[in-house]
Amino acid sequence: MDFSPSPRAADLTERVRAFVAEEIEPVEAAYHADLAEQRRGGDPWQVLPVIDELKRRARDAGLWNLFLPAGHSEGYGEGLTNVDYAPLAEIMGRSAIAPLVMNCNAPDTGNMEVLLKYGSDAQKEEWLEPLLKGEIRSAFAMTEPGVASSDATNMAATAVVDGDEVVINGRKWWSTGVGHPDCRVFVFMGLTDPDADRHHRHSMVLVPKDAPGVKVERMLSTMGLYDEPLGHGEVSFTDVRVPVENIISGPGEAFSIAQGRLGPGRVHHCMRLIGLAELALELACTRALERSAFGKPIANLGGNRERIADARIAIDSARLLVLNAAWKLDVGGPLNALSEVSQIKVAVPNMAQGVIDLAIQLHGGAGLSDDFPLAAAWTAARALRLADGPDEVHRGVVARLELGKYGAKR
Amino acid sequence: MDFSPSPRAADLTERVRAFVAEEIEPVEAAYHADLAEQRRGGDPWQVLPVIDELKRRARDAGLWNLFLPAGHSEGYGEGLTNVDYAPLAEIMGRSAIAPLVMNCNAPDTGNMEVLLKYGSDAQKEEWLEPLLKGEIRSAFAMTEPGVASSDATNMAATAVVDGDEVVINGRKWWSTGVGHPDCRVFVFMGLTDPDADRHHRHSMVLVPKDAPGVKVERMLSTMGLYDEPLGHGEVSFTDVRVPVENIISGPGEAFSIAQGRLGPGRVHHCMRLIGLAELALELACTRALERSAFGKPIANLGGNRERIADARIAIDSARLLVLNAAWKLDVGGPLNALSEVSQIKVAVPNMAQGVIDLAIQLHGGAGLSDDFPLAAAWTAARALRLADGPDEVHRGVVARLELGKYGAKR
Amino acid sequence: MDFSPSPRAADLTERVRAFVAEEIEPVEAAYHADLAEQRRGGDPWQVLPVIDELKRRARDAGLWNLFLPAGHSEGYGEGLTNVDYAPLAEIMGRSAIAPLVMNCNAPDTGNMEVLLKYGSDAQKEEWLEPLLKGEIRSAFAMTEPGVASSDATNMAATAVVDGDEVVINGRKWWSTGVGHPDCRVFVFMGLTDPDADRHHRHSMVLVPKDAPGVKVERMLSTMGLYDEPLGHGEVSFTDVRVPVENIISGPGEAFSIAQGRLGPGRVHHCMRLIGLAELALELACTRALERSAFGKPIANLGGNRERIADARIAIDSARLLVLNAAWKLDVGGPLNALSEVSQIKVAVPNMAQGVIDLAIQLHGGAGLSDDFPLAAAWTAARALRLADGPDEVHRGVVARLELGKYGAKR
Amino acid sequence: MDFSPSPRAADLTERVRAFVAEEIEPVEAAYHADLAEQRRGGDPWQVLPVIDELKRRARDAGLWNLFLPAGHSEGYGEGLTNVDYAPLAEIMGRSAIAPLVMNCNAPDTGNMEVLLKYGSDAQKEEWLEPLLKGEIRSAFAMTEPGVASSDATNMAATAVVDGDEVVINGRKWWSTGVGHPDCRVFVFMGLTDPDADRHHRHSMVLVPKDAPGVKVERMLSTMGLYDEPLGHGEVSFTDVRVPVENIISGPGEAFSIAQGRLGPGRVHHCMRLIGLAELALELACTRALERSAFGKPIANLGGNRERIADARIAIDSARLLVLNAAWKLDVGGPLNALSEVSQIKVAVPNMAQGVIDLAIQLHGGAGLSDDFPLAAAWTAARALRLADGPDEVHRGVVARLELGKYGAKR
Repeated sequence: MDFSPSPRAADLTERVRAFVAEEIEPVEAAYHADLAEQRRGGDPWQVLPVIDELKRRARDAGLWNLFLPAGHSEGYGEGLTNVDYAPLAEIMGRSAIAPLVMNCNAPDTGNMEVLLKYGSDAQKEEWLEPLLKGEIRSAFAMTEPGVASSDATNMAATAVVDGDEVVINGRKWWSTGVGHPDCRVFVFMGLTDPDADRHHRHSMVLVPKDAPGVKVERMLSTMGLYDEPLGHGEVSFTDVRVPVENIISGPGEAFSIAQGRLGPGRVHHCMRLIGLAELALELACTRALERSAFGKPIANLGGNRERIADARIAIDSARLLVLNAAWKLDVGGPLNALSEVSQIKVAVPNMAQGVIDLAIQLHGGAGLSDDFPLAAAWTAARALRLADGPDEVHRGVVARLELGKYGAKR
Repeated sequence: MDFSPSPRAADLTERVRAFVAEEIEPVEAAYHADLAEQRRGGDPWQVLPVIDELKRRARDAGLWNLFLPAGHSEGYGEGLTNVDYAPLAEIMGRSAIAPLVMNCNAPDTGNMEVLLKYGSDAQKEEWLEPLLKGEIRSAFAMTEPGVASSDATNMAATAVVDGDEVVINGRKWWSTGVGHPDCRVFVFMGLTDPDADRHHRHSMVLVPKDAPGVKVERMLSTMGLYDEPLGHGEVSFTDVRVPVENIISGPGEAFSIAQGRLGPGRVHHCMRLIGLAELALELACTRALERSAFGKPIANLGGNRERIADARIAIDSARLLVLNAAWKLDVGGPLNALSEVSQIKVAVPNMAQGVIDLAIQLHGGAGLSDDFPLAAAWTAARALRLADGPDEVHRGVVARLELGKYGAKR
Repeated sequence: MDFSPSPRAADLTERVRAFVAEEIEPVEAAYHADLAEQRRGGDPWQVLPVIDELKRRARDAGLWNLFLPAGHSEGYGEGLTNVDYAPLAEIMGRSAIAPLVMNCNAPDTGNMEVLLKYGSDAQKEEWLEPLLKGEIRSAFAMTEPGVASSDATNMAATAVVDGDEVVINGRKWWSTGVGHPDCRVFVFMGLTDPDADRHHRHSMVLVPKDAPGVKVERMLSTMGLYDEPLGHGEVSFTDVRVPVENIISGPGEAFSIAQGRLGPGRVHHCMRLIGLAELALELACTRALERSAFGKPIANLGGNRERIADARIAIDSARLLVLNAAWKLDVGGPLNALSEVSQIKVAVPNMAQGVIDLAIQLHGGAGLSDDFPLAAAWTAARALRLADGPDEVHRGVVARLELGKYGAKR
Repeated sequence: MDFSPSPRAADLTERVRAFVAEEIEPVEAAYHADLAEQRRGGDPWQVLPVIDELKRRARDAGLWNLFLPAGHSEGYGEGLTNVDYAPLAEIMGRSAIAPLVMNCNAPDTGNMEVLLKYGSDAQKEEWLEPLLKGEIRSAFAMTEPGVASSDATNMAATAVVDGDEVVINGRKWWSTGVGHPDCRVFVFMGLTDPDADRHHRHSMVLVPKDAPGVKVERMLSTMGLYDEPLGHGEVSFTDVRVPVENIISGPGEAFSIAQGRLGPGRVHHCMRLIGLAELALELACTRALERSAFGKPIANLGGNRERIADARIAIDSARLLVLNAAWKLDVGGPLNALSEVSQIKVAVPNMAQGVIDLAIQLHGGAGLSDDFPLAAAWTAARALRLADGPDEVHRGVVARLELGKYGAKR
């Protein structure tokens, strides 16, 4: 159980820290103000030029595609272990734009991993290359508005093989990244063979966003926020036809690919949330010492110190739990870390939600406004209690494995 | 301890219930869609015509100004006790627009009560009459961005008497109602005499919104929402001069007025939140029975039934606590209910936040979107943990009174 | 919804309060010391003479059998409503011995109610009369060590009719009252007809404690405590034969009787726990003001005031919830209060456990010792989360009724 | 951050696991039954012969004094790091007697460490040698009944130097180990110089238990339990005179010694509680699968699986937090781990209390009885929320260090 970063990772950590502190944080407030202005102007889905400039600098600095996993980086990125990547992702998580700037943002990271591990040479050339260069973006079309998607076998959209084409029909939502003007392709999951066994019915298909029959019906808000420039879309697919070669890894393979895709994605989400919670606690402490009421700094009123202590304990526990899951992934792969990944998927968003709520409370009304990143941070944490599997499903996984030690079948 | 409604209140309850069910609920989804459209069009601060139409109908139906308290209704409203008003406010609380439609919305209700109880005849004629008729709207300018306003004695904005004028300077925020095009007047609190004792330094002054030197600097968002058409403004006051007659009840009286103003206001907020929590639980149960996963209705998965039970217990407890505070107010006035009002100000928003969070979780991603009123409801509950005194301050009041039973001085 | 006590109840409340304050509290510490001495001497199951003396005084003062419900008091007791009885039970609940002293203690109260409502004249004469006079005591034999008794249909002990006798076999535990030297009779529940429908298989039978084949195997501890002089026994029944007339209300009627028996019993338990929680909060406040650390009274350290406030809010909420359940019982009987009784059975013990835990924490090590009644009070609250149905079963009832509003079958 | 055990520790872990499984667990139920019998017989403070036999076997197996820290084992024990000792202590923590059997139990461990680090040669020869051999036992006399001992500077008992003697007066309680017949010596803390600065007023003195003026007033119960054979005593010291050489490390040094003594002691307590929580979860899972209600294994009812998942997450988080504190101690000593030690002192007992409460609930009434080790385990966890500093004091330390990062003085 060794959570120490390699020397290379330690060096990268310092470089990422410096890049965020020196290049990103100084411009972030202005960025958000410009974004709000653009939103008020009725044209929110443009990418502000500063993003492209920052992307260029990050690429030049070698802080690019750092998420690419050891053994699958194929000449891109640094091939870091999960334990090595954890502190990097944590630092990026402090900023709303750092992951995008360093080409390390969901859902593109997951889609790139899928293509690296399961894509054909043609698929890699067409989609992976420009994704790795940050030239295009992608979305993941899995969740559906019409069914309880916490049970993925409920998915009703279809991907039917018809000769040398696949015919796509159905409606998806919460497809993150759809709002970005560079979004070019969906990784779409749909039902191919209803008679196969439960976990071999669905296929994963690459569907160009501009294919006839694809329509972005609307962009969805999360607690009032639209998360520009990526956003979350509701998308209809009506008799969309793509070549059968667009199926990744063959028909019926969606579930086995998804398992591999979602594992590291969940760990990355959790790593970033640790960073967000740390930022919230920093802001909370600073504010609690700066402002006074009833003759004392707010920090010294009532239970505030106790809550600050509990927040520190909660963050440190959660970080260790994430490192442990990362280490289990590193030493034994996804099957070695099933419980651990589900554990953090429950523990970390709930922890972050609590710490950020405390920070909001200590900021008073300002904490609810967009003067501070706290409202957006809280929303990110809350959404993660549903995205990539709700708390309840992950608790179910942990319980199944725990009771399995005593012979329970399921 | 009799919480039974009077026959008149029982009749009004049924009429309000019918009005909300028949007149408001059928148009509410369309209203929110139109509001969103208007927002996307960059012009959010218009009042949609349906509101005026509904106001007319409510007034015609006699469902108007029902909040006006017994002994202070002066020919307006019904002069209901707090216990009688509770079920009415609960029903209104289910809807985002019902309070406005029935002229029972904060902060106008509080401002009207202040003018009724403390206003001069001239103040009543100029401001109270049109407020009671719903012709104009008002705002309350107390909280300041520069200080911890949880301690109201921190207020730094000034209201200095200069001959027969009062000179107003300072910056206020979270002034609710400022966005409404009919908003005409602020009830402004400012420092008049820094040498007086702590609770006689501040005055409450009526400041017309169009007075020279008044500037709405910006509208504030709460967890991404702007709460149109009322909204919450940040407002600067620069050498604003109004006649000394605009001071309510004389210089230095702000704190004694505020105490009377905020008590019932807090109770009304809590009553409405009970309604919002009931609505959330209804939505939660309906969704949990309609949707299935893993072969069962979601209601029957994991701990969902236990959480639904806990929500029912929490709502019923909170309603009883609110009725108890209302009854204590009715039988003995504000000084008789200091602990009880602070108790519900802590208990009810936290309860509502929890119940609504459960409802969100049971809705999956839809619960976070604006397809359901849950995100807005959660935000309303969360904001109430800060507005009108943060949880911590109210816990402090309850503790002071509890320990006072054993002789503790403070 | 009128929770006001009748004038008669208000008078009784004052008399009970005075009796507890003047007769019981002054001797309670000495009583516990004597009990401990007796326990150390290896002879814990004797009733100390002070109990008999106090019983005599209570009976003389007319503070006797007050639990007997309106419509069923038959010349005994006062025939109080549940709302009227609530404050009396709350006061008795402050003391470990007051319920016994006033002949208002479980399980005798429930057993007396059963005999009043369902007993034959002969059963009443033989068992009810001496119970009402406090001359004998009784136990209730339902829970079994071999099965999960949270599902009462699991009960495996048998009560088989054989001619004019019933043959009793099986093992019961947590039979409260078995340790008392005056315990004379069991109300025993057992399986009579395994082929009947689920709720008509079991019978309730009066089994004299000295019948051949009845053996108290051992007394059980609860968190280390034995609750002398009543205690909780594990009892074996081996081919015990009693006349068929000892069946209460006929074979197969156990479940319908039990339902009526357990409802009021649960409400009484909750009422008493409110009193215990109030006592704990009193002790907590007193200690927190008397002791100092780091230069301040403990009350003023960290989050202690906030926790005291939360305790006050929790107790007041719980009391109102209990009054509401009592009122629903009074106006419509058990079927009118199914959810409400289960609600309080969940809410009150959990509330009490929390308040008492706070009081323990504020007392430091002393709170864990038997110098204060807090360890015993905590154990009483904790045990009530299992006795008379675990939290989970009662949450299930509340959820079933809630979801039933939306058409769910179960 | 490397939490991997050394090969030597890995080997010891297996040997300790085997010893507990093969030598201790098979006799533990009988041991507790014999203890209960002895207790009922009125003579609880005898050590049963099995303990001495097990101690002999542990010593022979080299599983003895394993707690002795690297750099201070002086030829005894294994000189393990804290990280290495953690899994050993966790295994011992599963059993109520294993720590005693392996000479690794509090408070003797702490007292031995004090003597190793600060004792004179004479003190070592007289007291340390026999303690290391397990021939005698010791107690620690710090907490006082008359003051809030959470603030150690409140200590009022005196240790006044009078020529070549020290005169001891005062009353201590919660002196663990006092009940053991082999207890020979107190490490006593008392006020020597009231005029010195706050942290140099007190001295630590070795006081033989049989010195004239020492009187064990009574043994204290914790939630009804006496923790035989060690027990917790209330002890009076009246004009007790011991040679001035009995002061450890000189007058006024008590606080600096105590700091070093309590740090590792707290970590050991937490390590053992992790083991106790694991045992509780094992029992919970087993019971939940074995027993059925309403047609299903209890594990599959309501929220039980979710709670089991939460318990697993909580234990794993807590273990990682403890390992982190141990590692910080190992690499930088106590001053490097101030926050981390206080963090686990808060987090671990609360976690254990929750997990054990769940296990109790899943066992029904049996969980509260002494048929399972759960009631005693819960009490151990609850007591640790007070012993060695209450939660609130440790939260205060964590908050002070956290806010100190932002310049707060205290």
